[in-house]
Amino acid sequence: MDLTRAAAVALDDADPLAGFRERFVMADDGMLYLDGNSLGRLPRETPAAISRVVEQQWGDGLVGSWSSWIDDATRVGDLLAHGMLGAGPGEVLISDSTSVNLYKLLLAGVRARPGRDVLVCTADDFPTDRYIVAGVADDRGMTVREIPADIDAGLDLSVLAEALDERVAVVVLSLVAYRSGALADLAEITRLVHDAGALVLWDLSHAVGAVPIDLGASGADLAVGCTYKYLNGGPGAPAFLYVRRELQERLRSPIQGWFGQRDQFAMGPVYEPAAGIERFGVGTPPVLGMAAVEVGARLVAEAGVDRLAAKGRTMTDLMVALGDAWLAPHGVALASPRSTERRGSHVTFAHPQAWQLTQALIESGVVPDFRTPDRVRFGPAPLYTRFVDVWDAMDRFREVLADRAHLRFPAERARVT
Amino acid sequence: MDLTRAAAVALDDADPLAGFRERFVMADDGMLYLDGNSLGRLPRETPAAISRVVEQQWGDGLVGSWSSWIDDATRVGDLLAHGMLGAGPGEVLISDSTSVNLYKLLLAGVRARPGRDVLVCTADDFPTDRYIVAGVADDRGMTVREIPADIDAGLDLSVLAEALDERVAVVVLSLVAYRSGALADLAEITRLVHDAGALVLWDLSHAVGAVPIDLGASGADLAVGCTYKYLNGGPGAPAFLYVRRELQERLRSPIQGWFGQRDQFAMGPVYEPAAGIERFGVGTPPVLGMAAVEVGARLVAEAGVDRLAAKGRTMTDLMVALGDAWLAPHGVALASPRSTERRGSHVTFAHPQAWQLTQALIESGVVPDFRTPDRVRFGPAPLYTRFVDVWDAMDRFREVLADRAHLRFPAERARVT
Repeated sequence: MDLTRAAAVALDDADPLAGFRERFVMADDGMLYLDGNSLGRLPRETPAAISRVVEQQWGDGLVGSWSSWIDDATRVGDLLAHGMLGAGPGEVLISDSTSVNLYKLLLAGVRARPGRDVLVCTADDFPTDRYIVAGVADDRGMTVREIPADIDAGLDLSVLAEALDERVAVVVLSLVAYRSGALADLAEITRLVHDAGALVLWDLSHAVGAVPIDLGASGADLAVGCTYKYLNGGPGAPAFLYVRRELQERLRSPIQGWFGQRDQFAMGPVYEPAAGIERFGVGTPPVLGMAAVEVGARLVAEAGVDRLAAKGRTMTDLMVALGDAWLAPHGVALASPRSTERRGSHVTFAHPQAWQLTQALIESGVVPDFRTPDRVRFGPAPLYTRFVDVWDAMDRFREVLADRAHLRFPAERARVT
Repeated sequence: MDLTRAAAVALDDADPLAGFRERFVMADDGMLYLDGNSLGRLPRETPAAISRVVEQQWGDGLVGSWSSWIDDATRVGDLLAHGMLGAGPGEVLISDSTSVNLYKLLLAGVRARPGRDVLVCTADDFPTDRYIVAGVADDRGMTVREIPADIDAGLDLSVLAEALDERVAVVVLSLVAYRSGALADLAEITRLVHDAGALVLWDLSHAVGAVPIDLGASGADLAVGCTYKYLNGGPGAPAFLYVRRELQERLRSPIQGWFGQRDQFAMGPVYEPAAGIERFGVGTPPVLGMAAVEVGARLVAEAGVDRLAAKGRTMTDLMVALGDAWLAPHGVALASPRSTERRGSHVTFAHPQAWQLTQALIESGVVPDFRTPDRVRFGPAPLYTRFVDVWDAMDRFREVLADRAHLRFPAERARVT
């Protein structure tokens, strides 16, 4: 790989997605923002879309606008289903937060597998996933098998296979690991879990919009994910959930809210779950947030996940190669899979002074993400990050290391994802 | 009561809250919007507040803005606590939807009362409350005692007392009934429930911002409520939850999300609930929605709940008196408490053709709410509804009845709250 800056510029010149960068708000400060997998940038169309909802639909249309809002959760869900999840219409719903959705689907899955008393997850999964699994297990007298994932290279399928038996009700896994970016094998793991008679619940938060996902073909049962990373839906944007069509009638949400009720406005005496994916809704959906999710999701669909993933692979390849050339000599080790095919769209490096390095990078105009205790994570977003941004960020990283600029910062702990 | 239009105009002239009307967006269409208890109007400040969050904080500040967003849920919660709930700092959290909050606190309460196997609610409570109670009861082998509320006059305390015994874990009640507007006795009912050793969980959705609430003095244990009615937080705005301070350490949310975790960004291996009200958080909070809630709540706090409630009482008194004079002769019956002190801020009328009447009123420029099967509900909002609006709306109601204008509409069923 040609590691010159000119080569990075040439990659940008040839990039079919280059035009999408100007669809995003870019402050004129030269900041190299490589944290789009924590909070994606603001699409230029989003303020107008929100303003339409706030000023026209709410301000002028008032309660009458519910006749259009009432369909947002399934309409935007269908957009994700078709554009980036490989799912069918009526299989995806925008709803609540990722955490609440995970809880609903996990407990629905547990109740659909009576007599099974084990949940499986990985020891290095994102905290909310592990905490929610632990909470459900505690409450219901179940056991959690936390399988060790190699946090740099991902999940060993033989280790997973050993954890699977007739006691397992549900397996919770992330398709792309939040720390390392390791990409799991959606279809193969789903097959393994099904062989054990269990259900699999995928967390797609770091995968959606970054890697191709074919929930339909994989046979996956359940999935959740967030929309404020690669989908650029904004801070605290509502999340999504997926339930395979043929499972929908057999699963019930544990939180029987009125937005999951069949014939909701009959306000009948008894809860009867709606026929389709709507049964996994709960309360009044966050209308403002959904308007922003729609804009973000349309941009991803327009760019196409295959093209985004291809650019992501080349970007992370470049980052890995530059890391080998420039960072490794300073003791900064790659903490993501080396194989392109095993990675999502982010790359993580390990160093004992990761916190100080993160601070020094931010001071130099590069925004990565610190992940406790010793990781610096870079999430180039193929929709708006240029190859030359990746090159420049790594260049500043080697300068920080060469100048030992990070040693001026105190050793300290994390900030916000 | 003087029922002339001039008297209504005089009430407006003397109204100390009259100036708040111009703090709201009013389309220049003369619409008489009496559905503020379904979806409150848009405050004029809200678009700029949202724009600040979207364009400055998200667009320019990006992930760094989380250092301010991270406190929104408790900061805005404290604003509600102090301004309209009679609660202390650290007792209220903005979080999720009303339905999800109800579920979390209900299940937390059930688990804090082991050995008790009965839940109590009223047969006429808002559907999501009843459905969630039923879902928790089904899942845990508990029994629901649905006590009959007189849906026009509210809850008979002797009937409630009969339903309370040592088997009751949690009692779920609305402070203001969504149909009739009947106002329950917060302190007296809380005392009754405590005498039985149970916890009480109040739904304040139709009460907050409309009637004085003193959660602290009443001894109430738990409460939830929505912010898109009298608080004017916008469609699907995030909801709030209240947990009495001395109970917080003993209760755990069943949904162990990372926003409820102590030392969240340590991302430790084991869930440990945060020390205070934060433990009832779950996923990443909806930042855009919270900005709108803050504007709405500040307006209510500025106006003062006591003044709002006083105006609400006079408005609903006027509506009841006009109903007696003008509607009753056409067979339209009052379906709200006749006593001023027993009402929240809305008034409901009953008529077999309520659906058609609602359609005819909307056609005439009056927006009430149809409540199945035979109710027309009016929610004048003291922040922006004028006495003359109430008078004019009732005047059009009598015209519809006199002209039998509603008979042109087909008998049909509900639309959206």
